[in-house]
Amino acid sequence: MRPLLAHCIWPTVARFSVHHVDGIRVGLLGCGVVGGATLRILREHRDELSARVGAPIDVVSVAVRDVARAREVDLAGATVTTEPAEVVGDPSIQVIVEAIGGVEPARGLILAAIASGKHVVTANKELLATGGAQLLEAAAAAGVDLLFEAAVGGGIPIIRPLRESLAGDRVRRVMGIVNGTTNFILTRMSETGESLAEALAEADRLGYTEADPSADIDGHDAAAKLAILATVAFGATVVSGDVQREGISSVTAEDVSAAHELGYEVKLLAVAEADGGQVAARVHPAMLPRTHPLASVRDVFNAIFVEGDNVGELMFLGRGAGGAPTASAVAGDVVEIARNIVSGGRSTISAGYGTKAAIRPTAEAPVRYYVVLSVLDQPGVLAAVASSFARHDISIASVRQEGSGDQATLVLITHVAPEGRHRATFDELQSLDAVKEIASTMRVEGTSEA
Amino acid sequence: MRPLLAHCIWPTVARFSVHHVDGIRVGLLGCGVVGGATLRILREHRDELSARVGAPIDVVSVAVRDVARAREVDLAGATVTTEPAEVVGDPSIQVIVEAIGGVEPARGLILAAIASGKHVVTANKELLATGGAQLLEAAAAAGVDLLFEAAVGGGIPIIRPLRESLAGDRVRRVMGIVNGTTNFILTRMSETGESLAEALAEADRLGYTEADPSADIDGHDAAAKLAILATVAFGATVVSGDVQREGISSVTAEDVSAAHELGYEVKLLAVAEADGGQVAARVHPAMLPRTHPLASVRDVFNAIFVEGDNVGELMFLGRGAGGAPTASAVAGDVVEIARNIVSGGRSTISAGYGTKAAIRPTAEAPVRYYVVLSVLDQPGVLAAVASSFARHDISIASVRQEGSGDQATLVLITHVAPEGRHRATFDELQSLDAVKEIASTMRVEGTSEA
Repeated sequence: MRPLLAHCIWPTVARFSVHHVDGIRVGLLGCGVVGGATLRILREHRDELSARVGAPIDVVSVAVRDVARAREVDLAGATVTTEPAEVVGDPSIQVIVEAIGGVEPARGLILAAIASGKHVVTANKELLATGGAQLLEAAAAAGVDLLFEAAVGGGIPIIRPLRESLAGDRVRRVMGIVNGTTNFILTRMSETGESLAEALAEADRLGYTEADPSADIDGHDAAAKLAILATVAFGATVVSGDVQREGISSVTAEDVSAAHELGYEVKLLAVAEADGGQVAARVHPAMLPRTHPLASVRDVFNAIFVEGDNVGELMFLGRGAGGAPTASAVAGDVVEIARNIVSGGRSTISAGYGTKAAIRPTAEAPVRYYVVLSVLDQPGVLAAVASSFARHDISIASVRQEGSGDQATLVLITHVAPEGRHRATFDELQSLDAVKEIASTMRVEGTSEA
Repeated sequence: MRPLLAHCIWPTVARFSVHHVDGIRVGLLGCGVVGGATLRILREHRDELSARVGAPIDVVSVAVRDVARAREVDLAGATVTTEPAEVVGDPSIQVIVEAIGGVEPARGLILAAIASGKHVVTANKELLATGGAQLLEAAAAAGVDLLFEAAVGGGIPIIRPLRESLAGDRVRRVMGIVNGTTNFILTRMSETGESLAEALAEADRLGYTEADPSADIDGHDAAAKLAILATVAFGATVVSGDVQREGISSVTAEDVSAAHELGYEVKLLAVAEADGGQVAARVHPAMLPRTHPLASVRDVFNAIFVEGDNVGELMFLGRGAGGAPTASAVAGDVVEIARNIVSGGRSTISAGYGTKAAIRPTAEAPVRYYVVLSVLDQPGVLAAVASSFARHDISIASVRQEGSGDQATLVLITHVAPEGRHRATFDELQSLDAVKEIASTMRVEGTSEA
């Protein structure tokens, strides 16, 4: 290993210590990809972290599903059990790292840990996006920290910047690429011209997909992460069920190539907006101008684009998954808690889980659409289509007529108008004799208008 | 104004309060672009911030150079003085925001504020990059917070993520575009083919330049910011003088166009690396592959690319200057301090200012170079040039011969080798009969090799 850069610590740290602390004892629930990497990081960096925190951090107990399983990380030196409740029940442990995932038994274990006065670090997006409020409320009542930087964007610092760095600003929109698998697929489709099925097969081959690809492809994973982001950004609870959701399964190679012709890239976006005291959150494929910073986020990278009243536009980019990046974020949370234990401090937990957000009805979301219509090649078609948009008070930003005869198509991009009026227009267009089929519709984001 | 989204606060916040706090009293030194915007933000968001912090934050006193000057922000309600020492000396004030800039009198005022037990927020990069250690040491000794998120990257949260989110990781490299003016100029040169002089004139016209353009053009501003970034990232003090510095004045339209042909963009990069217990820091123009996230950072945007052992690659992008973005970061620091006052906590200040970093000699920096040689069009030239690189143990990654007769040139890109060996080779090349001139040299960064 490379020699370490000597990390200095303020020689006077002890002066500020409220409590004398011999060491921070951590219990780890789950020792899979993320849990194992967390254990490795906390061990490899033990001396440095000990210097930075003012006390050593030790993982003293690990709950695993199968004790006999071969692992990259050596569990020697820690108590190993198949009973996570034993770890949670150990009165000598101050911090629980939950790396099991899923709603149960994770929820019950975290609540038990909180009830016994333990601080908790979790990367569990499913749990936070459905029952986060209950957990944060319990943590507040017990006076313990519950941190979850790794739940969104893997190793990307995004929860803490939203919670702390932007505490003096007002965030009005968060727009993210928060699912690496779908971004890999869309990048392949964009750069090689592959179909969705071909790109998915490649993602599969590289091990980027889950056993059930639906969580990624249908946007469930992105919706859970967006619920957490919106909650922290806007200070009011948004749950997975509040997120309007469309996956990438209907995105075709033709859509991607048409987007290119217009100077756009197709991305699966997670968008949350606060306006008029309401929050709107949606996950869907969208066309983004190539000049937008999110458009150049490639492969399995994630990025979160934030717009604040004063800070303007920010973007945070990094690896949104994987053991080491995610564990880096988990370890950062453990260090924050350890510092709090040493200093007698507490982390700010007014993370938005105190009040349910008012959710803006989907139909009211201001959006722009790209629309491809397969039409009859006869006089009056454009007039009929344009009239339909006009009747719904939607302005057309650009229109292009392509092909002729059986191949005649109209490609339109609208100006911003409510989702509901767009939907009503699409319904009407389908009933027009001149329109054979709505070949494609996709939202357009990231233009100065939207 | 748009109605605000109701920002909730944990109803139980008071339960954790160590101190009962009636309100946080802030004194502002300087009311220019950043100071004025800070005042505006703290006022406009007063109710929201008060709810988030658990106590109101009020700017009660403002020191200005000229009381009579017309300002966008209304100073009514605050004591206005031309004597910053009066603000610093006011025993009722708990937090000083220093927005004067420059080394003196800012340093003396900050030290006086610290000595009287006040917390300090500053965006003063010149001061921090030269005398940061003294200030942080004084703050530690006095038990007060000294925060400076706005000193680098304007509104981009970068100091706090380095200090906290990545506390459980080890940062090995920081690479940033931290000067908006030069990035605007290089973006113009790249996108319009303009010369440096033309692009600089345009930057001037848009108000992006300082009275003395040298701070930007010659890399002084970037070097100061890099010193701060390196200190926080690596935990050991780096000062401006430690930064090897080259500005953009020698970058030509031909360099930019040659970079394009090779698939690169030219950027003014600030690079700091930690290796073998030493830190190296340098600011210089460099060629970056177009696929690198920093290559697509356009106009006045700033971005900081961070590589950590576990987190892998991260990038933070945003507006690196301007009143509102910078003030957003200042306000975030004020809120952090206010929360600390309410909770009785302290911010982590082991920001690296405790120990001087060991600086790696410039000659040892591993770099790659792009080299354009104007050569004689005769047999043996390539052999002579290649032999010179070989004698200095530098491998050549690619070579291209262009033109003929008087226009004969060799364009080479090297593999990674120490800076010193590159310099020695360049010296030798200049003495070769076959080489008429070294037309251009530029470092190549952001390739998988470097």
